[in-house]
Amino acid sequence: MSVPAVNTISGNVVIGQSGGPTAVINQSLVGVVETLRGQPGIGKILGAVHAVRGIINEQYIELQDVPQDRLDRVAATPSAALGSSRDKPDAEYCKKIFASFEKQNVRYFFYIGGNDSSDTCRIVNDLGKSSGYELRCFHVPKTIDNDLQHNDHTPGFGSAARYVACAFIGDNLDNRSLPGIKLNVIMGRHAGFLTAASVMARQNPEDGPHLIYVPEVAFDETKFLADVDRVYKKHGRCLIAVSEGIADKNHTPITAKLAEAQGHPVEKDMHGNVSLSGSGALGDFLSVHIKNNLGKKLRVRADTFGYAQRCFAGCVSPSDSEEARMVGRKAAELALAGETDGSVAIQRISDDPYKVQYKRIELADVAGKTRLLEPRYFVGDNNIDDSFRKYLAPLVGPLPTVELLRHTR
Amino acid sequence: MSVPAVNTISGNVVIGQSGGPTAVINQSLVGVVETLRGQPGIGKILGAVHAVRGIINEQYIELQDVPQDRLDRVAATPSAALGSSRDKPDAEYCKKIFASFEKQNVRYFFYIGGNDSSDTCRIVNDLGKSSGYELRCFHVPKTIDNDLQHNDHTPGFGSAARYVACAFIGDNLDNRSLPGIKLNVIMGRHAGFLTAASVMARQNPEDGPHLIYVPEVAFDETKFLADVDRVYKKHGRCLIAVSEGIADKNHTPITAKLAEAQGHPVEKDMHGNVSLSGSGALGDFLSVHIKNNLGKKLRVRADTFGYAQRCFAGCVSPSDSEEARMVGRKAAELALAGETDGSVAIQRISDDPYKVQYKRIELADVAGKTRLLEPRYFVGDNNIDDSFRKYLAPLVGPLPTVELLRHTR
Repeated sequence: MSVPAVNTISGNVVIGQSGGPTAVINQSLVGVVETLRGQPGIGKILGAVHAVRGIINEQYIELQDVPQDRLDRVAATPSAALGSSRDKPDAEYCKKIFASFEKQNVRYFFYIGGNDSSDTCRIVNDLGKSSGYELRCFHVPKTIDNDLQHNDHTPGFGSAARYVACAFIGDNLDNRSLPGIKLNVIMGRHAGFLTAASVMARQNPEDGPHLIYVPEVAFDETKFLADVDRVYKKHGRCLIAVSEGIADKNHTPITAKLAEAQGHPVEKDMHGNVSLSGSGALGDFLSVHIKNNLGKKLRVRADTFGYAQRCFAGCVSPSDSEEARMVGRKAAELALAGETDGSVAIQRISDDPYKVQYKRIELADVAGKTRLLEPRYFVGDNNIDDSFRKYLAPLVGPLPTVELLRHTR
Repeated sequence: MSVPAVNTISGNVVIGQSGGPTAVINQSLVGVVETLRGQPGIGKILGAVHAVRGIINEQYIELQDVPQDRLDRVAATPSAALGSSRDKPDAEYCKKIFASFEKQNVRYFFYIGGNDSSDTCRIVNDLGKSSGYELRCFHVPKTIDNDLQHNDHTPGFGSAARYVACAFIGDNLDNRSLPGIKLNVIMGRHAGFLTAASVMARQNPEDGPHLIYVPEVAFDETKFLADVDRVYKKHGRCLIAVSEGIADKNHTPITAKLAEAQGHPVEKDMHGNVSLSGSGALGDFLSVHIKNNLGKKLRVRADTFGYAQRCFAGCVSPSDSEEARMVGRKAAELALAGETDGSVAIQRISDDPYKVQYKRIELADVAGKTRLLEPRYFVGDNNIDDSFRKYLAPLVGPLPTVELLRHTR
């Protein structure tokens, strides 16, 4: 499928940013632009406004002449500067994409996104190949969920994990100040990486989170109560990290159970994903569940971290920022070297010193597939092993340290 | 009430931290300790574990010998290092406080907290005076709500406002990337200062928040729909800041209406305050309200910022941090100078350069009273004037700047 071409094809470039934004997705955009522009065969570099929707509507921003200092400031700005979309192109949609590409003499397509987006990239690539329109398609990885296969981790995850870690460092201290039961609901439909990042808050004995529930492990509502009761009796408080995507042993999402029980309509996006973010439903449900069973007078609170996880301004991981830039550059370099398609994967070479390499992989290897948190990190059904910290530490960067006046309640 | 004593009284010191923690409340604790220790008449400096509860239970941590470098690290750690409490002492409770004070020869009492806490301080002070036990009582201001009278602003507010500003800077970009209607629910039962801090996110034309609802202005659910509809039609998106404490013209909290409508029990703390934090109820209610009336297919999301506003690690305002230290020092200096009681107020001397002074005020002037957002900042019933930025800018410190590739959708 991937045979380096002898000659570089000449034409224009389209870049799009798809799916949920991240704090560093513009680094990847800028990495592509700064590497391509001025190179042989590279014409206009067109940023598609709101991703594939911008392509079919022929809404482009020309990027080849944007001064580097402005590009650098864009790169440091959270969320998709071009605008994003959750549209998933079908055959009809793709015809319009080609019409736009042909009209603009587009020969290079870079699509920055997660596994849904890489699948879009694969479909467009395949249609290009089968229709005889010479097009080079590259997927540039991005997802706070960290769930792309063949990647050690994905751009956007480190900064989101940093947000989760900083929030839990603070909330552990808050829970210690005013003891009670506190739940924090974290993004991640299928993969528990971001929820597991809460372990970074454990700096001193008795620090929370004391319980961590990820989507990969079946959630049992009765066992949950026993877990909370035990921790609360031991520590006089209980800090809990729970993924929005937790499900029971039959794979029924706990949030969906709640939504139905409370009469809320369950919303789905065009990819068939149930919308789980931005709602306090799961946290409120679990709070009521605890109070109904362990005691009405218990101090139980729930927060749902929400969109701040992917866009909070001023909480960016340095390595994440750098690597997001590098995957954009690498994709552009592959295209310039004559590769016809592919995705860029980040692979870890060593932990100490932390070092990664950027490698081309097939679109089909990443498209539409989901990587899950490795079972070696599970501790029973309610916790994450501290060894996950070793994996995560270089990805989130140096975290605020805390100093306590006492180590027991 | 305040007559400077001729001689400094000799005895031990008790310090407590009360109410909701903040990111800088330990600065104030350390400010008191470092100023008092080693001074004439000052014996042990006892930190009350979990505030007044620690006093009646005689749970103290001795602070006079803690090395300065450790104190400095404690000062930079969010949330109450001594532990906090929401107990409000009654006459019976105060008898126990005095028993503990007499037993420990406590002659100086410093209580760091908000208006509930200053009222506690006032009650203890009055009981001390009437019972003939010579006790010097000082309130040290702290509240993210910014609602203490006679203060330009209060320690803890600047950092919480910085969190809100950074979250909105990011969320405005997120909402621009994936347009829709987004609500963010912000802390503040009665005072809208923290919600109003969202205006700091407006850096470019069309930036949100486009609508801001504070508790000081009556909320009308029908008018709200018209506001959202108008903004959404104009910008193709709508970012909304809403205080958890919004109420209708009859002062009925919108959250309470929701809680009753959905069958959730309304929880109250010992001060009679309805617990509004840590629940997604208001945001979910408003989302459903919008979809039911403006269209089921609208992309509507709500986040409730929650405890991260007061404890997020790594989002501290430099001026807030410094001023929190200074109010602790000032309270200690007042005591050393022979004042018998009082609270410390921050008063602004000039905007440019930003400069404040720390002034003693009577406990009764601040105790149990609430300051509200000044009406001059209201724009109609759904917005905050950009002039609020001038007031707020020095309090939150330099914010992340953003760079856009386009200024229209």
